[in-house]
Amino acid sequence: MLREDQLRSLPHSETLLINETSERLAQQRPVVRFGFGQSPFPVPERLHGALARHAHQKAYAPVQGLPELRAAVAAFHRKEDGVDWQPERVLIGPGSKLLIYTVLAAVRRATVMLTGPSWVSYEPQAILAGHPVTRLPTRAAEQWRLQPDTLDAACREARLEGDDPCVLIINSPNNPSGTSYGAADLQALASVARRHNLIVISDEIYGRLHHTGEHQSFARFYPEGTLVTGGLSKWAGAGGWRLGILHIPEALDAVLKPSLLGIASETWSCVATPIQMAAVEAYGRHPDIEAYVDRQRRVLHTIGQQSADRLRSCHIATAEPEGGFYLFPDFEYWRADLADRGIATAAELCDRLLAEAGVALLPASAFGMPQDFLGARLSYVNFDGSLALDENADMDSATAPVRQGIQLIDNWLQKKVRLSAVSHQIGL
Amino acid sequence: MLREDQLRSLPHSETLLINETSERLAQQRPVVRFGFGQSPFPVPERLHGALARHAHQKAYAPVQGLPELRAAVAAFHRKEDGVDWQPERVLIGPGSKLLIYTVLAAVRRATVMLTGPSWVSYEPQAILAGHPVTRLPTRAAEQWRLQPDTLDAACREARLEGDDPCVLIINSPNNPSGTSYGAADLQALASVARRHNLIVISDEIYGRLHHTGEHQSFARFYPEGTLVTGGLSKWAGAGGWRLGILHIPEALDAVLKPSLLGIASETWSCVATPIQMAAVEAYGRHPDIEAYVDRQRRVLHTIGQQSADRLRSCHIATAEPEGGFYLFPDFEYWRADLADRGIATAAELCDRLLAEAGVALLPASAFGMPQDFLGARLSYVNFDGSLALDENADMDSATAPVRQGIQLIDNWLQKKVRLSAVSHQIGL
Repeated sequence: MLREDQLRSLPHSETLLINETSERLAQQRPVVRFGFGQSPFPVPERLHGALARHAHQKAYAPVQGLPELRAAVAAFHRKEDGVDWQPERVLIGPGSKLLIYTVLAAVRRATVMLTGPSWVSYEPQAILAGHPVTRLPTRAAEQWRLQPDTLDAACREARLEGDDPCVLIINSPNNPSGTSYGAADLQALASVARRHNLIVISDEIYGRLHHTGEHQSFARFYPEGTLVTGGLSKWAGAGGWRLGILHIPEALDAVLKPSLLGIASETWSCVATPIQMAAVEAYGRHPDIEAYVDRQRRVLHTIGQQSADRLRSCHIATAEPEGGFYLFPDFEYWRADLADRGIATAAELCDRLLAEAGVALLPASAFGMPQDFLGARLSYVNFDGSLALDENADMDSATAPVRQGIQLIDNWLQKKVRLSAVSHQIGL
Repeated sequence: MLREDQLRSLPHSETLLINETSERLAQQRPVVRFGFGQSPFPVPERLHGALARHAHQKAYAPVQGLPELRAAVAAFHRKEDGVDWQPERVLIGPGSKLLIYTVLAAVRRATVMLTGPSWVSYEPQAILAGHPVTRLPTRAAEQWRLQPDTLDAACREARLEGDDPCVLIINSPNNPSGTSYGAADLQALASVARRHNLIVISDEIYGRLHHTGEHQSFARFYPEGTLVTGGLSKWAGAGGWRLGILHIPEALDAVLKPSLLGIASETWSCVATPIQMAAVEAYGRHPDIEAYVDRQRRVLHTIGQQSADRLRSCHIATAEPEGGFYLFPDFEYWRADLADRGIATAAELCDRLLAEAGVALLPASAFGMPQDFLGARLSYVNFDGSLALDENADMDSATAPVRQGIQLIDNWLQKKVRLSAVSHQIGL
């Protein structure tokens, strides 16, 4: 009735898949879940209390989102980011993931530029929307930040090939690297973007989780061409609530908004009304919410630093974490030893780490890195977020599972990888 | 930066638009809202109580949906429809609208067959997914039911043009006509579908609102090729909750499900977890929920019958309502008089009815009917659903706004259309 070749086959999202796989595995044996990027912190009481109060709300919301929510979101980000957010240019969607896809689907054909590494879902989304993808490599030595020259060269090349619009997706603080862009970086990228008339989708979902509160929005430097996305999934601990936000710049509003609203209204209609009503509280700048975010930043900063230091002590290079809850460790130092164990790719590395050490990481290849780059993403979220929020709690015991997980990686390298390599060399 | 011709411009959904337009208008003057198909009944206490209890749930759900919800949905429909629903072939999505789109997006290229009239969003969805659309006309004389011969002829023609799969979207009880298909109708259509290897998407979102509880699922007659969609929006009064369900037939599961899950995981991830937990209650076959649905059926049956009779008494033909809350009145009798007032299309008819009589209807052309077919969709939902659920309430006063709205249409025809036509004829 239907043959496989008649279908658009998009692989199941690797981040969501690792979560489901490690949950299944965990029923049989202990698994350290460094694979999935879900916030360990609970949704604040103010938010779930509001959801409970509005549970009886049943009406469809306007496609663009509840006016009071759009007003709260715009006021919040205007103040937070120093950018001219306006309620009539805010679109509320069921997750920023779907909002990014909606933007990509709105354009007939574009060159989509993604950094390597970048979040797992951008490329499949571009493919689903029918766009070719260009990878812009970044380097550990530059904290995985896109360099202006790299962007400029890619734009020149794209221009040679036609006049399709170019869409750059940039993400800071970054998933998977955990690093972020400062004002000077963004300023320099903005002038390239301006020169080439780029459309920029700036995924700032981890913005509020910049460890020292110094997140910079790309829209501050390139307001005319930057669409900003965000939402409740990371800083409000509410990934399972599915509420994302998008801001359309003034210069693109007239041409782009009708298309976005058309697609939204013919596919997802609106975000669940009770969830939108609860989100109004999230963007209300309440002191308890500010304190909750502030505490998260400090906890993540501490764990991120400790984890990076510990990995480095195992000869696993890792860029300095600056925001969110990811590290992007590189096992290059272990290449020869790993090769002796038949491990030559990141996918093999992650499979063996899961099977032999019970540690779930996501291979760097899932983020668009070459297969033989021996990196992986480590989400340091396997700790007790409720306990860690308590100023008086024993942080050491709250965050022990993260340390234990890294210890297991170390043990595996020392006892299985190195020893086996040694035995192999001495002919045992 | 972006030109309009570089965008996929999908018009804003006409049903959602009429809701937003009439809400704006209603701030200035009374408007009878026959335009928007939102259930007037409240979400039952059992459901919103469950949502409130689960408000603190924050984790992402599996992409396919919570296992307990899929089990409840499958058990419910297996019993209700006499069809082999299985939990592992159920997909939970944020609205059946997005689920239908996901199916269309999963297929590279298909001929999408839609009845005329059919729900407003199917055609834009097919266009967005890149599929050509074939309209299969239906007639009032046959209660707007697709005839097997019509389907057969369209399939033969499509087969002449290539071997792309053919996808038929069928909807019973029907939006906009309010009629439904009986067992014999579906049996006959199923043999045509089987002969031509059709993929059928059977949109059964109004199934539980069949006025006499006699809904027949297309999957009973064509199990191997029928994807069934449904959800909470209509019978549970929860349009604003955005929860839809899809069942994949066994014969298509292996080839289609990976593609559906791939698209879902890369775009919408999962339905809000607290909403899914509340939905478990909706599919639990609780006697209070059964009574609630039963009462809705009787109320809708009564209002539908009364409204159809009243319209006919105004010389507006209307098929017998059988399910849901729509009528599809045809103003053909008034054509000459309307023409004298400069009204020759359904769009003009609806514009003038809104402007001059304050009655919002949706033009038949929005449902794929020819521009000059003088029909419209009337949603008889502008009554007090909470009051109407009360067995002891005065039904006449609960449902008065529906009668008053039809009275306004009658007044407009008698006093503005006919009189002006008469004055015009006698040269006043």
